[in-house]
Amino acid sequence: MAEDRSKIIKTIKDSGKFYLISHMQPDGDSIGSLLAMGEGLRNIGKQVRTFTPGSVPGKYSFLKGADQVEHDLVDCDPSTTAIVLDSSDPERLGLLKDAFMQCQTIINIDHHVTNQLFGTFNLVTSNASATGEIIYQLLKELGVTINTAIAEALYVAISTDTGSFKYENTTPATHRVIAELLAFGLSPGSLSQKIFDERPLPFYILLKEAISGLEMYAHRRIAVMTLSRDIRQRCGASPGDLEGIVNYTRNIEGVELGILFYVESDKEVKVGFRSRSVDVSALAGRLNGGGHARAAGCRLYEDYQTVKRKVLAEALQALTNQPA
Amino acid sequence: MAEDRSKIIKTIKDSGKFYLISHMQPDGDSIGSLLAMGEGLRNIGKQVRTFTPGSVPGKYSFLKGADQVEHDLVDCDPSTTAIVLDSSDPERLGLLKDAFMQCQTIINIDHHVTNQLFGTFNLVTSNASATGEIIYQLLKELGVTINTAIAEALYVAISTDTGSFKYENTTPATHRVIAELLAFGLSPGSLSQKIFDERPLPFYILLKEAISGLEMYAHRRIAVMTLSRDIRQRCGASPGDLEGIVNYTRNIEGVELGILFYVESDKEVKVGFRSRSVDVSALAGRLNGGGHARAAGCRLYEDYQTVKRKVLAEALQALTNQPA
Repeated sequence: MAEDRSKIIKTIKDSGKFYLISHMQPDGDSIGSLLAMGEGLRNIGKQVRTFTPGSVPGKYSFLKGADQVEHDLVDCDPSTTAIVLDSSDPERLGLLKDAFMQCQTIINIDHHVTNQLFGTFNLVTSNASATGEIIYQLLKELGVTINTAIAEALYVAISTDTGSFKYENTTPATHRVIAELLAFGLSPGSLSQKIFDERPLPFYILLKEAISGLEMYAHRRIAVMTLSRDIRQRCGASPGDLEGIVNYTRNIEGVELGILFYVESDKEVKVGFRSRSVDVSALAGRLNGGGHARAAGCRLYEDYQTVKRKVLAEALQALTNQPA
Repeated sequence: MAEDRSKIIKTIKDSGKFYLISHMQPDGDSIGSLLAMGEGLRNIGKQVRTFTPGSVPGKYSFLKGADQVEHDLVDCDPSTTAIVLDSSDPERLGLLKDAFMQCQTIINIDHHVTNQLFGTFNLVTSNASATGEIIYQLLKELGVTINTAIAEALYVAISTDTGSFKYENTTPATHRVIAELLAFGLSPGSLSQKIFDERPLPFYILLKEAISGLEMYAHRRIAVMTLSRDIRQRCGASPGDLEGIVNYTRNIEGVELGILFYVESDKEVKVGFRSRSVDVSALAGRLNGGGHARAAGCRLYEDYQTVKRKVLAEALQALTNQPA
């Protein structure tokens, strides 16, 4: 926990111009937090540009401001206040890292316990379910009048990072925030259909491939799926379609730890972890990755067989060290 | 809305003995409401017997009192106060209807807009997301100290009837209740895992088979999956593992109508329908089946090819008649 809250509020009040960014491979929390913060600051008269190193996933394109998110910052003015959202580490900003890191004032707002506190001012609240939950309180403290657009963006942020309030990170505070947001005229039914249930056909073809290659280890307590760039392309699936596949590993009855290997090339493998009991944040950390206790990941620059051997060895170790 | 609230509170306070019941084919709300109400009344010194005409689904067996639910009431004492939960109509009590309807005082607590107000006193609140939401307020008004067992049962009731807060019936009040319930030490992660996400491995193998055979019709607005008893047995799956497969047809982006054929034998096919816009209750009705507007089914006693031809013809017709 790092709480430069009052300094952050003063800095925001005193600044006129902002660059806002959230992490690459954007998920609902990063996009929702980005757009809510952008809309909120504009509503109190600030000049705001919003950025993401990746593209906004189609399912979030209905959010206000989604079409204004930029992907390059070549004309960076270092006197502009930078706000970095939902990013544990500047590396998560991808190609935009250098531009943002030259800003004289960097406000770092996040809920990842692994956050490196790289900001001039840091507001890192690891017991918040989502960065969106922190943004909501901050916007209220800044005197922003919450409107439907902000409420929708924050709903997306919080509901996605909690798996529609199913994950262990969901707290009474999370539900209290959502109760307040829904009152701004949100439709939980149509929002949830957009966010959760609807997936393009290639997602299901990819899921079929993932289940086809399913392997079980450690007396069925570890489930492993493997996909590759080749398989993904053959299924007609986009990189965004990979999102959510890893959850299926953990959803198998009896599985404590689920792993998805995504083979980018013969020397790069992305690894996703989901768990029911094992601390996968620590596990990913030992493999130079990070994340949350029940959802984490890493990226290893070796061939698939080597990566798999290493990761499984660490995973078995993590499972063994687990209190029963 | 019918609100004999103060009379109900007085009646409960004045009565010493209760029969509690909820509807047949019990779901999370009926079981959760039943057990929460039972535990709550026992905690203020009442003598309570709980009933359901069906059996308690295995996934709710962890709830306190689930093992004490009875299925017969042969020795009915009509002076005992009956409380009927989550049941729009006495017919929903199945074989227990006659026993319960002879009780001199019947308290009817429900959230279905179609409730027939059959009680001596009725508390029917159709804007409550679940009967569990009504029970929570009532227990507090009765002076019951909410404990973890009651909170868990109410969490099950409310989270299942709202699809983990995704359905349109979810309100700010729903989230405020859940915020209060979580504070009794609940673990939303492990509860949700039990209620929603956890499926046995054969379910996923079956899902893989269903996706493998996926066919699209009507410019990808109709998705069709086909499984058979042979395939199910080959996957090591139980009949219960079929539950939920049909939802995957509708969850494909762009699909208006999803159909699952389950070939029981060469002269019997079970057909499940899910839709986003088409009234599948009417569609199933034309095929001697029934259900709800967005989820319905039928059973046809012919060979698969004949059934498929008939059902697809009706489905295309239903889609065509649909306002755009």
